[in-house]
Amino acid sequence: MVSSVVVIAGVGNGSGTGGAAARLFAKEGYTVALISRGSESLNVLASSINTSGGKAESFPVDAYGSDEITAAFSSIEARFPSPEYAITAAIFNAGHGVWKPFLQVTPEDVRESSKVNIEASFAFSRAAILAFQKNDPLPTTGAKGTLIFTGATASLRGNVVTSAFAAGKFALRALSQSLAKEFGKEDIHVAHGESADMSKGIATNNTRGDRNTPPSGPVENPKPHSLLSPESIATSYLYLVNQDRSSWTWELDLRPAHEKW
Amino acid sequence: MVSSVVVIAGVGNGSGTGGAAARLFAKEGYTVALISRGSESLNVLASSINTSGGKAESFPVDAYGSDEITAAFSSIEARFPSPEYAITAAIFNAGHGVWKPFLQVTPEDVRESSKVNIEASFAFSRAAILAFQKNDPLPTTGAKGTLIFTGATASLRGNVVTSAFAAGKFALRALSQSLAKEFGKEDIHVAHGESADMSKGIATNNTRGDRNTPPSGPVENPKPHSLLSPESIATSYLYLVNQDRSSWTWELDLRPAHEKW
Amino acid sequence: MVSSVVVIAGVGNGSGTGGAAARLFAKEGYTVALISRGSESLNVLASSINTSGGKAESFPVDAYGSDEITAAFSSIEARFPSPEYAITAAIFNAGHGVWKPFLQVTPEDVRESSKVNIEASFAFSRAAILAFQKNDPLPTTGAKGTLIFTGATASLRGNVVTSAFAAGKFALRALSQSLAKEFGKEDIHVAHGESADMSKGIATNNTRGDRNTPPSGPVENPKPHSLLSPESIATSYLYLVNQDRSSWTWELDLRPAHEKW
Amino acid sequence: MVSSVVVIAGVGNGSGTGGAAARLFAKEGYTVALISRGSESLNVLASSINTSGGKAESFPVDAYGSDEITAAFSSIEARFPSPEYAITAAIFNAGHGVWKPFLQVTPEDVRESSKVNIEASFAFSRAAILAFQKNDPLPTTGAKGTLIFTGATASLRGNVVTSAFAAGKFALRALSQSLAKEFGKEDIHVAHGESADMSKGIATNNTRGDRNTPPSGPVENPKPHSLLSPESIATSYLYLVNQDRSSWTWELDLRPAHEKW
Repeated sequence: MVSSVVVIAGVGNGSGTGGAAARLFAKEGYTVALISRGSESLNVLASSINTSGGKAESFPVDAYGSDEITAAFSSIEARFPSPEYAITAAIFNAGHGVWKPFLQVTPEDVRESSKVNIEASFAFSRAAILAFQKNDPLPTTGAKGTLIFTGATASLRGNVVTSAFAAGKFALRALSQSLAKEFGKEDIHVAHGESADMSKGIATNNTRGDRNTPPSGPVENPKPHSLLSPESIATSYLYLVNQDRSSWTWELDLRPAHEKW
Repeated sequence: MVSSVVVIAGVGNGSGTGGAAARLFAKEGYTVALISRGSESLNVLASSINTSGGKAESFPVDAYGSDEITAAFSSIEARFPSPEYAITAAIFNAGHGVWKPFLQVTPEDVRESSKVNIEASFAFSRAAILAFQKNDPLPTTGAKGTLIFTGATASLRGNVVTSAFAAGKFALRALSQSLAKEFGKEDIHVAHGESADMSKGIATNNTRGDRNTPPSGPVENPKPHSLLSPESIATSYLYLVNQDRSSWTWELDLRPAHEKW
Repeated sequence: MVSSVVVIAGVGNGSGTGGAAARLFAKEGYTVALISRGSESLNVLASSINTSGGKAESFPVDAYGSDEITAAFSSIEARFPSPEYAITAAIFNAGHGVWKPFLQVTPEDVRESSKVNIEASFAFSRAAILAFQKNDPLPTTGAKGTLIFTGATASLRGNVVTSAFAAGKFALRALSQSLAKEFGKEDIHVAHGESADMSKGIATNNTRGDRNTPPSGPVENPKPHSLLSPESIATSYLYLVNQDRSSWTWELDLRPAHEKW
Repeated sequence: MVSSVVVIAGVGNGSGTGGAAARLFAKEGYTVALISRGSESLNVLASSINTSGGKAESFPVDAYGSDEITAAFSSIEARFPSPEYAITAAIFNAGHGVWKPFLQVTPEDVRESSKVNIEASFAFSRAAILAFQKNDPLPTTGAKGTLIFTGATASLRGNVVTSAFAAGKFALRALSQSLAKEFGKEDIHVAHGESADMSKGIATNNTRGDRNTPPSGPVENPKPHSLLSPESIATSYLYLVNQDRSSWTWELDLRPAHEKW
């Protein structure tokens, strides 16, 4: 039987959305290919998944550039070749956040934001779509593959101190919408999940006040009513992947119950 | 153990979104209370669910007016009293569609659209929220209840021939957003699902070219790539109900893979 | 020469947007037909315009119902018949605001909101469009007429305590968008102006702390950086009316410089 | 008396929005500083304005990079120093359009789009805002300056073949919204004008079928109902600049009367 592969870019220290998605998709039987900067925490996460009976491998990059992403995808396809494997899901969770008053934003901030949020996402999308195009539609969902982008409140609204971040996130949302429209008719599902991290953010190890937990493991969300759980975001991504092609969602907003918006 | 009740308004001939939701929620163990005009197809749907091992009951109304909805809810609460039962989900799927060039829209069309889309939805929301407020948060999701509105493309865009329909659907979306913001902090989840029925619509018995199938049963979607399946929409509603309160979705769009948008 | 008539519905005490538009359009040479509840302040406004060298007349209605609006329009057309006159602009500035926690909103509130915001606006639009269709395109702009709706922040966002108001305002925006799309090709311009009255509102006599000024006259805006001036809104409406048909605006937001949004 | 300077970036062959804005603002008494690639048509435009009794000067750049824009602005400030001059308006009309199926978009396309649409616009905004901050609020409008960005349909919607263009235009809109929110309270007006060039585009010399007209002059719009006139867009920009600070518009859509949308 063909083994489904999910490629996840942007894993950080493993306690956020990327890590939670990796663990959840592994538990669901996916082979997980992890792309991120910093091979150390990437390896810790992969090991932890492998130890728990899942299957994960690291594909670290030096930077989120177009070439690096393309090369990482090639390595993934070489490591998990068809017909044993098929890349059926890809999650672009990388991002470059700059929160500064506008006049403090430097040209380098802008360039780096464009590089990670735009150039890397274009390269990632291209590689994912080329991989999906080789697949037959899955019998369960009718999809050849699902490409998910992680958005934020800044994907929808520019605000004081978010000029550079919002520019990148708006661009990412534009890309996801263009792709959803262009590739839907090829049975490729493209979705954009906005995690409304306006006030308090996502419950990673840092916001959970628990910096010493090994980066690979989930920890309790201390305030589930006002702090997004990465595990819940991951559950949403799995739901998107499992939608059948009669009812695809392009845009999914996620927000804690007590969030003021 | 407390039995969860879902109230569903707007069931039509049972082959659309309301009927599919009724069957799915029944299968998940919910007691289903059905509100609709036309007691006949309502009874057929309820019987069919009861025959399949589920539990459903009809609460027909003569019209979608404020008083009628309020009375139906009272009957539901009387029939399914606490502490044996708790209303934990409510789906407003009723709607009044008028598709005409603007100059052919009559004052009666406008009044009827306002009555069903606005007055009835306000009454339904009020009754649902009052019922939810009596509940403890569910241990699984942290929600006291979930209120879902069925939207459409016309919820987001007015268009030629949709003036009256879009007016009602925009109003419904406004209501859902106001409620999501007002009652989130009380752990009540309000969501709005847009079924993008722009070009071809939803695969009901009619669009499925199968008018003789008993109205209560699902039939195959002949074009799953371009026709929304009510069963998939129902799956999405169940997903919304099962979201934990760290990550609630207010607005969910659903669109067939091959839809041009 | 044909005299242009502007019809304005919703004038209140004359110190808000409707009154300012009446005065400005009169100054620009329009004959002004005023529709509003409460004939007294309507007459004061009309007299004041007539005294200043303009031309205005009152067409009071008992209520903002479909029939009342239609009748008022008939009176206007009878009073200002072609070919001496042509109705070339119409401004729907009426509204019914209900700001209450949702559970305090009564069925009557909802009904009244639907009546003013939806039924009256449909009737007003119908009468205006039928009147415009009799015109030749103006040589200056290429338009047969311009129909403007006054929106608010609640036209775009439902919020705590605005459920009923937002429902009506969303519906009005839906109507305006549908009409813009349907009648643009007939050279009829439909626009929607959102006055972002979120925090402080519009500088009417009341907010200007000057209740004794005769309702018909403009007064100084004490805080032009944070309080919308009705006169500026009126200037925007005149700008919309003067756009040539190569570049029409459907949606115009207006917000004080220091508004936090 | 202080002479007002408008800086316009993105002038092309002078027959589009940038050129029309230059001519209109010159006629209104502004000193016009033109930034663009290609000094030749820039000089033709400047000469033509100067010949007509206006005042314009060219500040050509080799590329729309951050450094180039910053340097051009420095030259402008050196050439038009205070207190004789004050930069009170700035229009970012540059753009880099790529319309290709996604799989044909190259990393260079993406990089170039980011450079022009994002890096250059950030640099332009920074220079404009720093210049505005030196001004006193204008007595007429209360503004220290107005910064306008030219958007497009692709600013609001990604679509098939617009992935790269929409990414850049979404980013630009994000920037404009962030700036509007951050600098409104400093009496700096930031606006975003969307010219809905979906089907047919803007009536430049090319679309006007009149390639031999000298690039600096306006020509008749052959289809004013379905082709945007640059002169009308320019009129809208002037309207934005003249709004008083009680009623500022952030976002202005412009669309021909017969446009299908």
